[in-house]
Amino acid sequence: MIEAGLQTPDAPESLYAPAKYFLALPAKRIRPVLTLAVYEALTGKAPLPALNAALAVEMFHNFTLVHDDVMDNADLRRGQATVHRRHGLNTAILCGDAMHVLAYRFLKSYDDPVRSQLTFMLLDTALEVCEGQARDLCAPPDVEGYMAMLEQKTGALLGTAAAMGAVVARADEATVQKINVFARHWGTAFQIIDDVLDMYGGAEFGKQPGGDVVEGKKTVLWYAAYENLSLRNALDEAWSRRNVEEMRKLFDAANAPTVARHWAARRFEFARQAVADVPEVGSVVRWLDSLAERTV
Amino acid sequence: MIEAGLQTPDAPESLYAPAKYFLALPAKRIRPVLTLAVYEALTGKAPLPALNAALAVEMFHNFTLVHDDVMDNADLRRGQATVHRRHGLNTAILCGDAMHVLAYRFLKSYDDPVRSQLTFMLLDTALEVCEGQARDLCAPPDVEGYMAMLEQKTGALLGTAAAMGAVVARADEATVQKINVFARHWGTAFQIIDDVLDMYGGAEFGKQPGGDVVEGKKTVLWYAAYENLSLRNALDEAWSRRNVEEMRKLFDAANAPTVARHWAARRFEFARQAVADVPEVGSVVRWLDSLAERTV
Repeated sequence: MIEAGLQTPDAPESLYAPAKYFLALPAKRIRPVLTLAVYEALTGKAPLPALNAALAVEMFHNFTLVHDDVMDNADLRRGQATVHRRHGLNTAILCGDAMHVLAYRFLKSYDDPVRSQLTFMLLDTALEVCEGQARDLCAPPDVEGYMAMLEQKTGALLGTAAAMGAVVARADEATVQKINVFARHWGTAFQIIDDVLDMYGGAEFGKQPGGDVVEGKKTVLWYAAYENLSLRNALDEAWSRRNVEEMRKLFDAANAPTVARHWAARRFEFARQAVADVPEVGSVVRWLDSLAERTV
Repeated sequence: MIEAGLQTPDAPESLYAPAKYFLALPAKRIRPVLTLAVYEALTGKAPLPALNAALAVEMFHNFTLVHDDVMDNADLRRGQATVHRRHGLNTAILCGDAMHVLAYRFLKSYDDPVRSQLTFMLLDTALEVCEGQARDLCAPPDVEGYMAMLEQKTGALLGTAAAMGAVVARADEATVQKINVFARHWGTAFQIIDDVLDMYGGAEFGKQPGGDVVEGKKTVLWYAAYENLSLRNALDEAWSRRNVEEMRKLFDAANAPTVARHWAARRFEFARQAVADVPEVGSVVRWLDSLAERTV
């Protein structure tokens, strides 16, 4: 349903063929499925009315990936060539811009006031995502800054994806807000786990362990280890060599994976608490928790 | 009024300081002034209610300039360093993305249905602008393709700038449409004149004549000259050398500036015809015509 709906115009081909290529890459589609699942859980009905909201969120997410790949100078996304590697820098910038516009345009199909509410929710989130990406590019100074960055860059859009399903379901404002907070915390926690798995995930994830170290990305493991004052000099020194084994030993010495998993667990708990009195979305909470457990 | 309103948030500074820098560069602000002028002409009232619509258009325009400058690899904009030259590629992409979001967010202050109408008008236009830019990057095959590109890349936003003023003024749909067509043609015609002036403007415009040739941009003069079958070989050959004097002689031999001015004059006439039965906007037509005359 999501794949079929994730359409762009056809002409000019120089603009839309790269977008179609990127949108067709295999992906988990957690965000749009979340929008649909919340709608279904709250109404007990088939989620077709929430489809355009779900597509808006997924199109927006894909726009950010195209531009992020340029900023990260990444060669691969979802195992395939990134748009800028395949079609050049200019096309990647412009194709991302068009996908950004197409995202909001999915919301035109709703009637006001739902249409306006969805549109400006997504716009507010879009600004948060840009701010989170800006903070990511600068490397946050401490773990609080890092968590705030994750929340803006990843948590915010998950929260809005879930909340948009609730808005289409005509839930009251307080319920929409609780569902937003729930998915925002869950998304942030999931990203923390994702950081840990980059180093400790093992080969079953099909990635070379320590890719973030190789790329010079300081993730949650770095901040967890850096809390340990006695290790700071060693961490700074080892970091300059980008040696995965060396960094892993220091992370182990600092108990970084356990600390990071504890931070994630606390966030998952915040998430569950936020919707403790919205039992209708219990199935959504269980689905997301099963996703997280499969990877923890 | 426009300069004072063209604000962004402050933090993170790495994202918004470059945006503030760019937005403060001296500019003509034709698009937002057009929005305000149409509102004032239709209502006879001070244009404050149209200010946020005007700011949305100007912010959107500035977003496109930041990204276009990257795609053109331009060093200067409005006589100052472009964002990517001053702050790097990543910041220019991200800062443009944030300005794109901020543009639509100015429209939040309106009530529905005006809010939705303005938002989706601007979104439809945004897609046209992206498509026009994609066509520009590929160099259109003929003069029809070139004109269609100009209309999407430049005309569409001028049309929407004017039409948004009419929407805020609560004009009826037919009037909004006429005003849109008027400014869309006018903007396209103005861009044709701008192309001619790049070669024939003289030093009073503070630019080196023939900049487009040096940068390898085929403008309306090229397409006008290329209509002349007997000159095509000479044009193709001379083009490869990017020699301004040589190109100017060929353009002169083909009567290209006169042909192009004729194309522009026809568009200006279409523009005037579109609002022939909307006498309320006569003052706006005269203002835009005076801008064009000053440069023709």
